[in-house]
Amino acid sequence: MSGFSSIRFGADYNPEQWPKAVWDEDVRLMRGAHMTSATVGVFSWAKLEPRPGEYNFEWLDEVLDKLHEGGIRVILATATASPPAWLARLHPESLPVKEDGTRLNFGSRQHFSPSSSAYRTYAMRLVHQIAARYHSHPALEAWHINNEYGCHVSHSYDDESAAAFRAWLTERYGTIEALNEAWGTAFWSQAYSEFAEVGVPAQAPAHRNPAQLLDFNRFSSDALLALHREEAGIVREYSQGVPITTNFMGFFPRVDYWRWAEHVDVVSDDAYPDPADPDSYVLLSAERDLMRSLGGGKPWLLMEQAPSAVNWRDRNMPKAPGMNRLHSLNAVARGADAVCYFQWRQSVAGAEKFHSAMLPHFGTESRIHREVQDLGRELAGLDAVVGTEVKAQVAIVLDWDSWWAIEQEAVPASRDYLETVLAWYAGFLRRGVEVDFTRAGASTAGYQLVVVPVLHVASTAALDELASVATRGNTLVVSYQSGVLDPQLHAYTGGYLGGVGSALQQALGVAVEEVAPLASAETVTLLDGSIQGAATDWQERVEVRDAEVLASFDDGFAAGQPAITRREHGANSGIAPGAAWYVGTQPTAPLMDALVERWLADAGISAAFAAPEPGVETIVRGGFRFTGNHTAEPRTVTIAGKTWELEPYGAHYEPIAT
Amino acid sequence: MSGFSSIRFGADYNPEQWPKAVWDEDVRLMRGAHMTSATVGVFSWAKLEPRPGEYNFEWLDEVLDKLHEGGIRVILATATASPPAWLARLHPESLPVKEDGTRLNFGSRQHFSPSSSAYRTYAMRLVHQIAARYHSHPALEAWHINNEYGCHVSHSYDDESAAAFRAWLTERYGTIEALNEAWGTAFWSQAYSEFAEVGVPAQAPAHRNPAQLLDFNRFSSDALLALHREEAGIVREYSQGVPITTNFMGFFPRVDYWRWAEHVDVVSDDAYPDPADPDSYVLLSAERDLMRSLGGGKPWLLMEQAPSAVNWRDRNMPKAPGMNRLHSLNAVARGADAVCYFQWRQSVAGAEKFHSAMLPHFGTESRIHREVQDLGRELAGLDAVVGTEVKAQVAIVLDWDSWWAIEQEAVPASRDYLETVLAWYAGFLRRGVEVDFTRAGASTAGYQLVVVPVLHVASTAALDELASVATRGNTLVVSYQSGVLDPQLHAYTGGYLGGVGSALQQALGVAVEEVAPLASAETVTLLDGSIQGAATDWQERVEVRDAEVLASFDDGFAAGQPAITRREHGANSGIAPGAAWYVGTQPTAPLMDALVERWLADAGISAAFAAPEPGVETIVRGGFRFTGNHTAEPRTVTIAGKTWELEPYGAHYEPIAT
Amino acid sequence: MSGFSSIRFGADYNPEQWPKAVWDEDVRLMRGAHMTSATVGVFSWAKLEPRPGEYNFEWLDEVLDKLHEGGIRVILATATASPPAWLARLHPESLPVKEDGTRLNFGSRQHFSPSSSAYRTYAMRLVHQIAARYHSHPALEAWHINNEYGCHVSHSYDDESAAAFRAWLTERYGTIEALNEAWGTAFWSQAYSEFAEVGVPAQAPAHRNPAQLLDFNRFSSDALLALHREEAGIVREYSQGVPITTNFMGFFPRVDYWRWAEHVDVVSDDAYPDPADPDSYVLLSAERDLMRSLGGGKPWLLMEQAPSAVNWRDRNMPKAPGMNRLHSLNAVARGADAVCYFQWRQSVAGAEKFHSAMLPHFGTESRIHREVQDLGRELAGLDAVVGTEVKAQVAIVLDWDSWWAIEQEAVPASRDYLETVLAWYAGFLRRGVEVDFTRAGASTAGYQLVVVPVLHVASTAALDELASVATRGNTLVVSYQSGVLDPQLHAYTGGYLGGVGSALQQALGVAVEEVAPLASAETVTLLDGSIQGAATDWQERVEVRDAEVLASFDDGFAAGQPAITRREHGANSGIAPGAAWYVGTQPTAPLMDALVERWLADAGISAAFAAPEPGVETIVRGGFRFTGNHTAEPRTVTIAGKTWELEPYGAHYEPIAT
Repeated sequence: MSGFSSIRFGADYNPEQWPKAVWDEDVRLMRGAHMTSATVGVFSWAKLEPRPGEYNFEWLDEVLDKLHEGGIRVILATATASPPAWLARLHPESLPVKEDGTRLNFGSRQHFSPSSSAYRTYAMRLVHQIAARYHSHPALEAWHINNEYGCHVSHSYDDESAAAFRAWLTERYGTIEALNEAWGTAFWSQAYSEFAEVGVPAQAPAHRNPAQLLDFNRFSSDALLALHREEAGIVREYSQGVPITTNFMGFFPRVDYWRWAEHVDVVSDDAYPDPADPDSYVLLSAERDLMRSLGGGKPWLLMEQAPSAVNWRDRNMPKAPGMNRLHSLNAVARGADAVCYFQWRQSVAGAEKFHSAMLPHFGTESRIHREVQDLGRELAGLDAVVGTEVKAQVAIVLDWDSWWAIEQEAVPASRDYLETVLAWYAGFLRRGVEVDFTRAGASTAGYQLVVVPVLHVASTAALDELASVATRGNTLVVSYQSGVLDPQLHAYTGGYLGGVGSALQQALGVAVEEVAPLASAETVTLLDGSIQGAATDWQERVEVRDAEVLASFDDGFAAGQPAITRREHGANSGIAPGAAWYVGTQPTAPLMDALVERWLADAGISAAFAAPEPGVETIVRGGFRFTGNHTAEPRTVTIAGKTWELEPYGAHYEPIAT
Repeated sequence: MSGFSSIRFGADYNPEQWPKAVWDEDVRLMRGAHMTSATVGVFSWAKLEPRPGEYNFEWLDEVLDKLHEGGIRVILATATASPPAWLARLHPESLPVKEDGTRLNFGSRQHFSPSSSAYRTYAMRLVHQIAARYHSHPALEAWHINNEYGCHVSHSYDDESAAAFRAWLTERYGTIEALNEAWGTAFWSQAYSEFAEVGVPAQAPAHRNPAQLLDFNRFSSDALLALHREEAGIVREYSQGVPITTNFMGFFPRVDYWRWAEHVDVVSDDAYPDPADPDSYVLLSAERDLMRSLGGGKPWLLMEQAPSAVNWRDRNMPKAPGMNRLHSLNAVARGADAVCYFQWRQSVAGAEKFHSAMLPHFGTESRIHREVQDLGRELAGLDAVVGTEVKAQVAIVLDWDSWWAIEQEAVPASRDYLETVLAWYAGFLRRGVEVDFTRAGASTAGYQLVVVPVLHVASTAALDELASVATRGNTLVVSYQSGVLDPQLHAYTGGYLGGVGSALQQALGVAVEEVAPLASAETVTLLDGSIQGAATDWQERVEVRDAEVLASFDDGFAAGQPAITRREHGANSGIAPGAAWYVGTQPTAPLMDALVERWLADAGISAAFAAPEPGVETIVRGGFRFTGNHTAEPRTVTIAGKTWELEPYGAHYEPIAT
Repeated sequence: MSGFSSIRFGADYNPEQWPKAVWDEDVRLMRGAHMTSATVGVFSWAKLEPRPGEYNFEWLDEVLDKLHEGGIRVILATATASPPAWLARLHPESLPVKEDGTRLNFGSRQHFSPSSSAYRTYAMRLVHQIAARYHSHPALEAWHINNEYGCHVSHSYDDESAAAFRAWLTERYGTIEALNEAWGTAFWSQAYSEFAEVGVPAQAPAHRNPAQLLDFNRFSSDALLALHREEAGIVREYSQGVPITTNFMGFFPRVDYWRWAEHVDVVSDDAYPDPADPDSYVLLSAERDLMRSLGGGKPWLLMEQAPSAVNWRDRNMPKAPGMNRLHSLNAVARGADAVCYFQWRQSVAGAEKFHSAMLPHFGTESRIHREVQDLGRELAGLDAVVGTEVKAQVAIVLDWDSWWAIEQEAVPASRDYLETVLAWYAGFLRRGVEVDFTRAGASTAGYQLVVVPVLHVASTAALDELASVATRGNTLVVSYQSGVLDPQLHAYTGGYLGGVGSALQQALGVAVEEVAPLASAETVTLLDGSIQGAATDWQERVEVRDAEVLASFDDGFAAGQPAITRREHGANSGIAPGAAWYVGTQPTAPLMDALVERWLADAGISAAFAAPEPGVETIVRGGFRFTGNHTAEPRTVTIAGKTWELEPYGAHYEPIAT
């Protein structure tokens, strides 16, 4: 639970960019924009500690007091996100090192190796100071640990990282023999005789050891989490009852947020969809659903978004009129209790001066600021949803191990894991069906339909849990390239899906003999079965043992082979019948829509939209139905007999009939 | 003034590539080709000083004497362009370092850090030797300092460069507080507590500080210029009255030639248009006009071109028959008093053996050599233009600060500054209108029309000067993305164009509320106003305060917003009326042509061509009208009632009627 | 001669990846698959010598004994291909260094600088151990030295490599003056005063010295060969009569196999054509013909192929049913006495677990394993061809110096040398004409037709040998960009083709005045002559002195210039008339087919196919005619009046009528 009693509306506030004279105006204008919260101190280390051990807190005292007097509450950052120049100079070894051995330098932000002891020492000393000084400040409503962990530097190949990696491996494997076995070092003469020989997987002549790469991903994610936990621990020494968070970055590929989410009091997210991409609403919606799922269904905070353009793409389009409101309501509908921005006042200098802000270069009499003011006013009327949850009957399995492993080199075909997962998610979004994401291995109880796209890596226990979905009477959908490797990246032999005789093979009634990637733009047709359509990306030779073949390939390498199968479970037993689907290819959108229709029917779930509505979303939260139009054209939608007109980028909400 | 009494026709001459036996033949064949000048010694350091302090000048004495006897005059290089192998070995720290920290090595050319003290010491010692020995040689007609400064290495990230950068910054800012303020280091915790903490902007995790990057561009340009000035100073100690030059490289992005041009006696240029690109004549013509403008209108020297193909593109097309003459006359027409080549005799070894030369591998009985001989003969008849100038009524502002800043990352949209400027220039070229380039901040007096494309960075003084164009009764044209940042890269708030209430905002009668890059291939239409057409690349929300809206956007983010405005000045006053145009988008070529028509009318300038003539040029110099056809088809052109037929790649000139 | 009495059918066998329990099953299943040979120990160093000097051979003894008992013979590797982790830790200087100065690390394979003394010392010590222990093992049938030399690391820029390069240069040139002359260091001030100043051509600011680059290619190839020769020498100390080989990699660009082939007893090859590329059969067939040619016509060994997909492309398609057999018979037809795979049992861990193997993850009841079993059975019936040779009347010159030089930067146009050569080869393949590759400078006696595509670099002697083809009464075909540079990369002036007055210019009756690359997608037409068609890539101005012009260019830079010429030799003499063709452009496939027709007629060679048959091949070996269909459609072919039906990817062979 976020613990907030009203929707928070706010922004990062970086007053150190401005002379004091501006601060009073800031508070006044914040109030005019209905702002409730300000995140302060994210990049303040150099100002708070201009020289090692020499602190300067007076300005921050003043800022917090002014905000407090203005009725703006404060989310206080620990200021450790970007170390000062003196640290880089005193401890050049604290700077990160790239895979090729070259060093990254001071001059932007986040220039520290996650394993640097010097960084850690100085950062934690600062956190002590800040927590001690401000834990009882009346404006304080939350702690913000560091900032966007790993955004620019998640993996460092420096010597301290190598030592930390060895320690992590020693902890994980115990003996060098266990590591050798896990990593398959017998191949290519990679066996180690002691841990001291093991290094980080820096640039090498050929494909590097896949398990070493995966473990380095895991280690790097853990190293960042360890930093977070150490900071959070210090804060908790001084401050009780004030929630702790750090800002996640949606589907961030380099940190396993399932592991991290346990260590925050409330989940936060930074979300920057590309206004130029008409499909970005899929990612955006999925990202909200992930944030909710990370917190176990609890409300979360939209910590950063842009009111209009960002500055870091090659071409940075503004948000069309209405889009800022649409995205903000999309967040609230999907579980957010806060709508915040980076940043309050647009910078006039530095690397982000062209990033839009609540108060733009042009000033208050601007489209952007007017939209912000209107939104602030509107959100203040939505407090009824605060603290409420969203109920989903469908779960999609999302797994960082699979993500890391499937995007390695030396696999059957290169793949964008996130894009693949979203193609499955989008089928449900187009029907207005609520979806949670779930962790591989987590209990699937409570979901009527569980979808498993390209779960490349999975433990036997996780696969058993998935198999149980069908056997207990619910609907399971498993895609190609699932259950191929165990958590040590050893192949499950004898048909994948967990290997010969696995519970999952049994539940599905199939095994995979052979895989066949298609060329990147290639499409194959599925004509012969009861389900027809087009598919891309992948074919297989599937051995069907006990399942109905619903579609076969008509062309390509696997012409004549089964493409989609279904096994029914317990139809004649006392319990409700379950169904286990196997999909050995990547459906195109029309085929996905047809399949979603079938899966929902199997699972007994009714969709809000009677037919797919690309570009439109609907979701229920806290007694309200939210509907949004993510297209540039007006749209009419009908849900349960009721019809709404939505203007371009328009959003609507109203209480649901009870 | 070049100081030459006849058109120079010549080449780089590198006799050290050949046995002495060839030298006599060279002089004989040079005379046969009507050659008047030879540039000698550009890459001779290793031969002149084979070991540190051990000099060998006898061969050069002999070469100069032979040339003198043959009637060929000498442009003598200072030989410092490519240091010998022994310097790299003695002083590996003199080698340049890339942004990623890796070092460039000996084995090609220009392998020195511009800030290397070792390079500087040895180079200047050599210049003393050469100047002392040859300052009175009777063949000497000019000094050629170094060669193509910065062509391969303009920025080096080595330790000496970092120290020199700190010294440059200390000189510029005085205090570290001033630097912090200028660079906006308050953002992202980048504040420095002393200059010793400041480094070069080498690779870093995220976007680097924009002002640091810009200052490093300025410093790097200045560091090269300092080398030039030191060499020139030494030469001047020994040699008076002999002009000093160094060869520029057209629109070279990494050196500010406005600052440099003050330090040469005559401007020189190396120009290598791509024969495979039918639009290269635009760049070529603009490059000539820039060279003339750098010298304040004085004649300049075409120091290097290729008679046919170069060797450094991916595919190197020859110049079609006639093209060599066409390009040479294009240079003369636009102010050149010399037409020279790289190089006299085609190398048989080394990195440039496939670069065409006046005397090709095939020998004298070749198309290339025959064309060279013919051209030499023809140019000898054009001495009447020597020393004369070209008169232009139109000026286009070109600014290296804007170039550097607009091509940084973290801007609204990536942009090719030169391509953008040339799109504006080309509108005048197609009409046969003479154009100068002018420096931001320089006096605009004397121009009836001043065009300001994407002047992203500008001082208030420079913007005031531009505003005065309209208020004094001339015509001013300002494009989008102008006057956005001050010279420290701080945004001008309150509508850009120099910021709230600026003279430029007043002159134009508009302010810019919001900018909206288009997708890279996107086109929008302007249909509603008195000017119609298509535009690309950029849209804006413009607040019109006191101007006529001549065109509005019909589609895109800014649909319905003003696109092109015009404010008339002093129509009812005693002075001639001025006009101030604002163009908030990038016109396509047809729209640009329509606008040029309007601007010329406002400015009272008549064009040579009655309608746009793509691929054809005309210009007047020294009493001659030069006309050239840069297309592969015959063309007929009419100017002032007179008609010429131009064959493919044909050029024509004749005295103008007086 | 391979010395084998039956066709070998086998694979790399890496038992160290598996528990001992699997070994017995392996031998049993190998027998079931009709396997005769296993290559053992390729990546066993870490297991054989887990710590420096501490050997562990017992497991290998056991493996060899088990194989011997099972009737499987052993090709024993020297195990030096991938050094153990302890070597990288003890001697980090043994790791290779990239051109940019960054180091490659342990963690994949082949992580050694070819010039590392530490690697060499430890590797040779191991070879002594292995050779001493196993030279008399009854299973041993061949020695396999190292593995895929240079595959990932052929060039290293470390300090030891630089020292070895200097030693190699001193040996080659004797004096620094000779090196300066050869490299043309007079240009760009690159002269060296002593060998100690010379380095490897690591990254530099501009184009590096071409001759230095070429010599570094030669040195790097020699450095790998020296390692091979040292290993082979040690093996020969212990083992006589057992053939020594190492696995080549087809047209491997970085090692000169002509020099290498002299130092193996039998040539071996690893071949991995891309099943997704319908044209890969051209490369595949040419690769087989090269292997045969490298061995002077003797049988060779297909040491590695994949039964289906590999794992190292971006997308790895499986081999369609039949394709594995087709490729295997293609190898046998073109001279192979062995058909082997990487690897026997598919890995479950490590970097190649998704590389197909004879025994796949799915197990024995799989398409792949069944096809392997069937092929093993079939090949056992083909022993009649063992030891026989293939007779070709056509030779194509292949030259690594030209390859290296033509793919450098700073040439007239970038070129893929291999793709160009294969375009000439393919014309003969489509007609079912047997082709050998031959080395520049080797005797051309015995060939009726010699084809010389883009022989950019050649000695005068080599060019004289080629000229003699025509003068002795055979047919010579020379393409553009031949005879341009001598072996020191100095241009032959006066018309290329060996330079003014060369034997080749005389034989052809032409000289080249000027070259003109076309744009990459550009096509020109040849309409005016007796040969018509379309060409790409290149045009020339050719001076015809004594030859018939058969085709001229109709468009492009060289419109109206000769494109294809033919000079007849000795028509009125007592000997058979010879013909010398010059082709100054790159024919498209239809034009190439027309030319092949003419060349075969000139040479008196009859083709198997009466017309081009793209995608189909035929070749005669050992009294059998082999025919293969490399397309996905059934094909009917007729040879000498006899007709065969070939199914998709089908292959057929039968004794030829005698």
